[in-house]
Order: sequence, then structure tokens, then C-alpha cells
Amino acid sequence: MSIKRVLLVGGTHGNELMGVYLIKKFERCPELVHRSSFETLTVVGNPRAVEECVRYIDQDLNRSFDLERWQPEGSNNSYENQRAREIRAKFGQDGQLPIDLIIDLHSTTSNVGLMLILDNIDTFTLRLAAHLTSRHPTLRVYSSAGSNRNSDSLRSIAKYKIAIEIGSIAHGTINSKLFQENEAIVQTILDYLEGYNSNAVELEESSLTVYQYVGVIDYPKDDKGEIQAMIHPQLQFEDYKLLNPGKPIFLTFEGEAIAYSGTLAVNPVFIGEAAYMEKGIAMVLTEEKKLRLSPD
Amino acid sequence: MSIKRVLLVGGTHGNELMGVYLIKKFERCPELVHRSSFETLTVVGNPRAVEECVRYIDQDLNRSFDLERWQPEGSNNSYENQRAREIRAKFGQDGQLPIDLIIDLHSTTSNVGLMLILDNIDTFTLRLAAHLTSRHPTLRVYSSAGSNRNSDSLRSIAKYKIAIEIGSIAHGTINSKLFQENEAIVQTILDYLEGYNSNAVELEESSLTVYQYVGVIDYPKDDKGEIQAMIHPQLQFEDYKLLNPGKPIFLTFEGEAIAYSGTLAVNPVFIGEAAYMEKGIAMVLTEEKKLRLSPD
Repeated sequence: MSIKRVLLVGGTHGNELMGVYLIKKFERCPELVHRSSFETLTVVGNPRAVEECVRYIDQDLNRSFDLERWQPEGSNNSYENQRAREIRAKFGQDGQLPIDLIIDLHSTTSNVGLMLILDNIDTFTLRLAAHLTSRHPTLRVYSSAGSNRNSDSLRSIAKYKIAIEIGSIAHGTINSKLFQENEAIVQTILDYLEGYNSNAVELEESSLTVYQYVGVIDYPKDDKGEIQAMIHPQLQFEDYKLLNPGKPIFLTFEGEAIAYSGTLAVNPVFIGEAAYMEKGIAMVLTEEKKLRLSPD
Repeated sequence: MSIKRVLLVGGTHGNELMGVYLIKKFERCPELVHRSSFETLTVVGNPRAVEECVRYIDQDLNRSFDLERWQPEGSNNSYENQRAREIRAKFGQDGQLPIDLIIDLHSTTSNVGLMLILDNIDTFTLRLAAHLTSRHPTLRVYSSAGSNRNSDSLRSIAKYKIAIEIGSIAHGTINSKLFQENEAIVQTILDYLEGYNSNAVELEESSLTVYQYVGVIDYPKDDKGEIQAMIHPQLQFEDYKLLNPGKPIFLTFEGEAIAYSGTLAVNPVFIGEAAYMEKGIAMVLTEEKKLRLSPD
């Protein structure tokens, strides 16, 4: 197996500007992402949302690729459904330019630092992730398996798929230090793929720490659906850290702490992410796991 | 002179949720802002924008109160113009409930910490500011005089007016620690006014440090109006700190530093604020000044 075509995506969410400006840079200077053994393409996922600097126009583009709920043309003509059809027709496995690997660039208001999102735990993806963490030691790996990302996200149309998630960054802003780190990770991926295609990569690590999705915690709400509490100061910006049962996770507007009522210690991520408030999600829970990497 | 009516405003910008949730709290528990010598009213400035969690629907409400450009009813029926007319008819000096002091609650993605914005440098306002900084030592005072805030902002309709600006906070999020500090400042203001009305306040400070507006710096742009650079890492989140001529302020996407070309040392604030990107503004420049407070 070799990688023949890679798609770099920014602006799947229109107000996540880091990815948008990185894609614009690569489109100005395509030699930066050119490699000899595969083709690198770029696309801005949701250009109208980028123009208006909002997450989406009618519905979340990154929840619009579900084949099972796939609407026949005309039945749901939201902007994002149309855009999803265009993107699938161009880059899907039955499209004009089927993609082997999508790298989708995101940012978040939560304090996840440099995060790699894996939707599939296959050997190719795990080895790529292990290589990246060896080159970028602050990079953490989150596995979304079980959270539906594999069936409705933009990147789900590719054979292999990863997202790079960077935070904390306010939506609608760019952070120059994180922009450069984001770009460096993309370069490391492209270099790895070049080596992979010529069988020149070696397994440098025997295991990989992965934060595995296990569920979400919603904000407490009143009868009218109004949220009643904020993220507790002790939890704010503490993404990945171990949260034990009984520890405070929310603070009501009246100043009362609400404890984590689960029975398992977990590692929350995406704590207080702005875009999840409309869904009522306060944080995503993960379990820290060590995965063995299979030798050649 | 006594203060008879105070208006607390949140959600003048719909995605600045701290103020919105503080106003909601005060509307649930009006006894928190009740004082014996004056009436305290509350209002959500831009409820439709709050509902959609965006800064505004058609135009910035906080730039819609300009009397000189005031449009006769019907000539500009943007949502915010209608809303500005409603608010003025209710709370303006010729309205049903003319307001002596507006306290407008804002938040920003820039790292201004706890900031008090003064549009007027009159004795009443300066003494209030000095009292607040004595009680909240991390509070900094910004004077917007000369920046048009006094003629087109929502708070411009009141006799006296201040804004509380808190950051860094991503739009669409709440920070519980800053929420509590925000509330504490509002309480200190209301207590001060109660004392003021009974002549029980004394001048505790003889001078006040003020960051005085002197201008703005725009992002560098190309021929098509696209921004070409980000805030330099050395300047990011360094609001208020002295910026000397020749120091880097921008980093192009290609990695080149751009220096501050002014001739005066300045103290930038609102560095990289998300909402200013659409106007092309990268930061607001101020000069740090010590103002003498006049004795009784």
C-alpha cells in the first residue's frame, strides 16, 4: 500500500482561522506541501462560513457527511449539505480525486494544546501518530472511536483520516506561535508519508498513549433548557488531567460547586469548548490508555 | 447631584456571554443589585444576537447610537437600528426611564484582564474609577476619549457611563473565576453609589493611572485586502506593556517579523481582539498617564 493523494483541509468550521490561513499559505506556496511520491491537494471546507467568520451557515459541515442519513439531492438543500455533496463528489472514494489521507485542521477554545484526533485505530494511523509524538513531544493523541466522527465528519470520506486540533484559541483569532507549530506538524506528516512510500520509515516507539473517548458530560440545565452552571475554576483549562469521582466540575452562577458524579476516574478534554455549548456539552470524557504498536 | 437610576447592560454584543449570564443572574435575584437610594435596572442589549451567539445580526449595536448619523424611523431598519431606537426611547435622557449611570458588561479575546473603560474624564467618573482600583487592585483603567465611543455606543445615552471589559475570554464562553470577579466589581460600584448618594464617600487616592487612547494599528494587508500577518508571539497577550519603536508587532504567515514603526513608546491594548479583525484593527494604542484627582 502506498499513499497517492493527500488532502489538507482548513475552515471545515469557518471561525477556526488557524487552519484557514494555513491552507491559504499552502495555496500561495504549493512547493511547501509538494512531495515527490504523492499528490497534495488543499481545500477550504466551508468558504461561506469563513467569509462570515462563523462555525457554519445552516448546519455543522463536520456533521453533514453521514451516509446512512444521506439525503437525496433536493431533499435538504442547506448550504452545508450542498457543500458536503460537492466535497464528496470531488474527493470521496467514488469521486474524481479519491483521497488516501485527509488532514483536517481545527482549533478549539479549550486548552488541548497540540492534539491529534484519530478516528480509526489501524496500524498505519497508529504508526503515523507514534512518529508524530516522537517528533513533537507535546502532541497528545485523542481517539474518537465510538463518537460517530467516523461516519459524519468531512474527513470520513478518505481512506485514512486525522484531524489536528489546537487550543486554546478564541474562535475568530490566530495565534502565531501555535500557527507555526501547526505548520510544523503538517510538514512532519508529509515527510513521514514520503518515507512511508519508499519503505524508509522505522517503528521508533513500541507503544502510544491515547486518550480514548468514553462519553460526554452536559451542562446542568433548568426546566427551560437554560444552563445553570459554568466550568468550575479548578477544572477550567485542565484538559487531559485526571478527574476523580467527587471532584468539582461545575460552579453554578450562584456560586455552588457541583461534583463529578461518575464512578470512574477520567481525563476530560474539550473542557468548555465554545461550539459545544449549543449542544449543551460541557466536556468530552476520555480514558488514558497505552496501545501496543505491532512490529513489522 | 445624586444618582437616581442605574442600568446594568449585558449582551450589547451577543457572543460576550459573561455579561449576559450576569444580567440573567441579577434578573433572577434582583435583591443582589437592589440599593435603597437609587433604582437598578437591567437589560440584555442585543437579545437576538445572544440567541444566535453572534456579535450582532446586521450591524454592531454598540456603533448604532450616533445621534449625528441618526436615521429617521424607516430609513434604516436593520435589527440593531430598531433595537437602538427602542433602548433610547426607554432609557435615553428624553426617554421613559432616563439613566444616570450605565454599566455595560463586555468581554474580549485579548488579555486585558479586568479593565474599566471611561468615555468621559469628569470628576464623578474619575473618583468612581479611583475607588474601584483601590478595592480591585488588578483593575486597569482605559480612557476611550477621542475614539468615538462617546457618540455611538449604547452607554452614550446615559449621563455617566462606564464599561467593564474582561479578558482574555473566547467569545461564546464563560470563565467562572472572571465571572465572579466581574460580579464583585459591579457590587463595589453599586455600594459606592449608595455611599455617594449619602455623601459618605471619601477620596482615598490622589491620582489615577489611566491608559489613554491615542489610535489604532491595522493589520498589514495585500492588494486584495487579505491580512498578511499575525500578532507577533512577543506581543501576543502582552496588553498594557510598554511597546518601544522598532520592536516586533507582527509576524507574516511566511515567518517575517514586522516592527512597530511609530516614534512614540505606547501601551497597546485589545491586542488581536477577534471582533476587530473584520475592521482590520490589530490593536488599540494607549499612553499611560497619571491623572490628578481634584480634592473636594
